[in-house]
Amino acid sequence: MLNINFKKRLIKQIEFIVQIDKLKQVFRQTLLTDGLRKENDAEHSWHAAIMALLLSEYANFAELDVSRVIKLILVHDLVEIDAGDVYCYDQDVNQDRVKKYEKDAAVRLFNILPEDQAQEILSLWEEFEEWLSPEARFAASLDRLQPLLHDYYTKGIVWDKNHVKSKQVMARNKAIADGSTILWEYAKEIIECIS
Amino acid sequence: MLNINFKKRLIKQIEFIVQIDKLKQVFRQTLLTDGLRKENDAEHSWHAAIMALLLSEYANFAELDVSRVIKLILVHDLVEIDAGDVYCYDQDVNQDRVKKYEKDAAVRLFNILPEDQAQEILSLWEEFEEWLSPEARFAASLDRLQPLLHDYYTKGIVWDKNHVKSKQVMARNKAIADGSTILWEYAKEIIECIS
Repeated sequence: MLNINFKKRLIKQIEFIVQIDKLKQVFRQTLLTDGLRKENDAEHSWHAAIMALLLSEYANFAELDVSRVIKLILVHDLVEIDAGDVYCYDQDVNQDRVKKYEKDAAVRLFNILPEDQAQEILSLWEEFEEWLSPEARFAASLDRLQPLLHDYYTKGIVWDKNHVKSKQVMARNKAIADGSTILWEYAKEIIECIS
Repeated sequence: MLNINFKKRLIKQIEFIVQIDKLKQVFRQTLLTDGLRKENDAEHSWHAAIMALLLSEYANFAELDVSRVIKLILVHDLVEIDAGDVYCYDQDVNQDRVKKYEKDAAVRLFNILPEDQAQEILSLWEEFEEWLSPEARFAASLDRLQPLLHDYYTKGIVWDKNHVKSKQVMARNKAIADGSTILWEYAKEIIECIS
């Protein structure tokens, strides 16, 4: 789309940067804490990245590269530009199909970048997706805790609307304990408060 | 607001995390690249943080801590929760007053956090604001380049609407060169393309 005469590498990088603007249009079920509208994936990613900066002391791991946690979070939802956001409590979803859509999205989207960076972003995404490191496991905890805070401040209205039971919320979010037992203790309390 | 019996430090951190949700309601003049709505500060911060991850090779500095650039960007607009976003081409703005509002916002907002983290976030914000490091200077370049891309893809419609001349755009954005001469060369071309 750019008609600018500039070196190929930068053009590819800019093309990717422009494409990922679409993450701001991928809306989640979660409401903002004031309840006025749904949150999008770009906002969620920014918010969870700041949480990584502030809450890393609660990770289960003595050694944690916080900067890597932040990078994992920044890119973790990019594939949803193509694959869309799936509500985490939707029991009718075919998880294998979602995985395939997301993998296809990763191939298409990341390969807009120069090869070395396509590989770098793919590695970050796979690390997050497969919980391949302490950083990925802690990032996954924050990815769950962030919307729980929104659910708490909007009094679980989205759960009610979608007939989500607190048992389901507990089951989905107990994985927080894998990255942080302390944050899971906290999360359990807020789930109980809403239910 | 939380009625949960948990340790004080975590409660303060969560209170801050919930307060900064408001950054998603601070709308900028910049349109999304599809032109359909204005972008907000949380989306802008996420987008510029990813740009840091991808474009650091163009920084003017041989040694650059990319992770710090990302952290600076993640927090750089938080003060606008209280102070609001000022359009960078608005010539009627009293810059001293804006600085004061932003400083007051930093004091109020960051001090919700435990003292050590309030200091950490304040330091990051001041480093960004005063261009105190190569990382801050490169972050400032990206903070300017990101909306320029949006202006390019929306054909400068926001400039036209606000009677912004290309001379003003050049004057405002030449500071990109301080962090990256290469990205400034690129930015100049896109400004010329739109004008």
